[in-house]
Amino acid sequence: MKLPRTGIGVDIHAFATDGRTGLFVAGLSFPDEPALEGHSDGDVAAHAAADALFSAAGLGDLGQQFGTSDPRWAGAAGVRLLAEAAARVRAAGFEIGNIAVQVIGNRPRLGPVRGEAERVLSDAAGASVTLSATTTDGLGFAGRDEGLAAIATALVV
Amino acid sequence: MKLPRTGIGVDIHAFATDGRTGLFVAGLSFPDEPALEGHSDGDVAAHAAADALFSAAGLGDLGQQFGTSDPRWAGAAGVRLLAEAAARVRAAGFEIGNIAVQVIGNRPRLGPVRGEAERVLSDAAGASVTLSATTTDGLGFAGRDEGLAAIATALVV
Amino acid sequence: MKLPRTGIGVDIHAFATDGRTGLFVAGLSFPDEPALEGHSDGDVAAHAAADALFSAAGLGDLGQQFGTSDPRWAGAAGVRLLAEAAARVRAAGFEIGNIAVQVIGNRPRLGPVRGEAERVLSDAAGASVTLSATTTDGLGFAGRDEGLAAIATALVV
Repeated sequence: MKLPRTGIGVDIHAFATDGRTGLFVAGLSFPDEPALEGHSDGDVAAHAAADALFSAAGLGDLGQQFGTSDPRWAGAAGVRLLAEAAARVRAAGFEIGNIAVQVIGNRPRLGPVRGEAERVLSDAAGASVTLSATTTDGLGFAGRDEGLAAIATALVV
Repeated sequence: MKLPRTGIGVDIHAFATDGRTGLFVAGLSFPDEPALEGHSDGDVAAHAAADALFSAAGLGDLGQQFGTSDPRWAGAAGVRLLAEAAARVRAAGFEIGNIAVQVIGNRPRLGPVRGEAERVLSDAAGASVTLSATTTDGLGFAGRDEGLAAIATALVV
Repeated sequence: MKLPRTGIGVDIHAFATDGRTGLFVAGLSFPDEPALEGHSDGDVAAHAAADALFSAAGLGDLGQQFGTSDPRWAGAAGVRLLAEAAARVRAAGFEIGNIAVQVIGNRPRLGPVRGEAERVLSDAAGASVTLSATTTDGLGFAGRDEGLAAIATALVV
């Protein structure tokens, strides 16, 4: 067997400051939670997973692969970007082992929907995606509810 | 050989603001350092290591596995949680390759006790656990001594 | 094949507050960007990569390996530290699989020079080093332009 390759991806989005609701994280919709800023759906879990794949494969990152100037990907859902990232990594000759994502922040509560989120993300990636979550004990931007972060590792071969 | 699986875990705890001392990090006791908040011992290194194991194995996270409502784990030492996490990951059919943990913050100084900490953590996990440390150059919550963070990756197969 | 080992490394440096320019990141020079503090070149990408190697191999970290008291490494370029880290990891009996580094911050723009940076870092490590980048959506110390962070994973066997 060839030695696998490891990759890493961090993604951070700020919560909207205008009180809008409608949060998308880990491929799921949380209509009553505060919305994240930005022209994408702000799905930090899906974005971190995609970046970890690109990182492992040496294909750059979300910004380079889905440049903001490309209208095809403007406002695309995070899971759609993850599915396309997986397709591009496979097209470059890699097999995807697994992706592990941890969401860092006070909300949403992911424990009760973890199984569903893992199914949606794994379907998008065509490989096992595991999901976990933690808080920052009130510290930093995530502890002050200013934003949400996710960190992911991926293994490809 | 089967392709191994990678996992990731970040853990963050705030320092107590009442001046208490008694810090537990990486399975060791630092009685003269400021204490961390919370009903656990706040051992960010052991917690991040356990979360990385659960992440690699797809078993969720510390919050799901050791819910705060379960009296058996209330106030449990971090190394005890790590040992139980390793047992649960093995019970789910995985072999543990290694765990790598980095502590991020101004204190305690881990360099002089690294070997001892690695022995304690590795004994708990029943697998190689390596420990490293870094500071944040005075930036963020860790640079302001508001808390301590740790980040870990794990490989299971 | 033996099971590979995973490692993790985070590195953070503060921007100089005196308006100096001259930034070194990922082995490249950005003379017009703000300089980072410190007696090293502050190359967070090279430092995180070196720490991830030490972490995977169980050799401690930059602080332990290149103690600030050792004049040989005072002010050494990040890529020189990375090359020496790779040599020490190999001397300890490990083969280096790959290193994946993500730079987190508002500047410099790494997309246009990614290929060149990956060549410089890979030459230093004698193994594949991939580079990616992300911003924090204006959040935290990196979002406020107070400093620059990098996170890396490495696989050794």
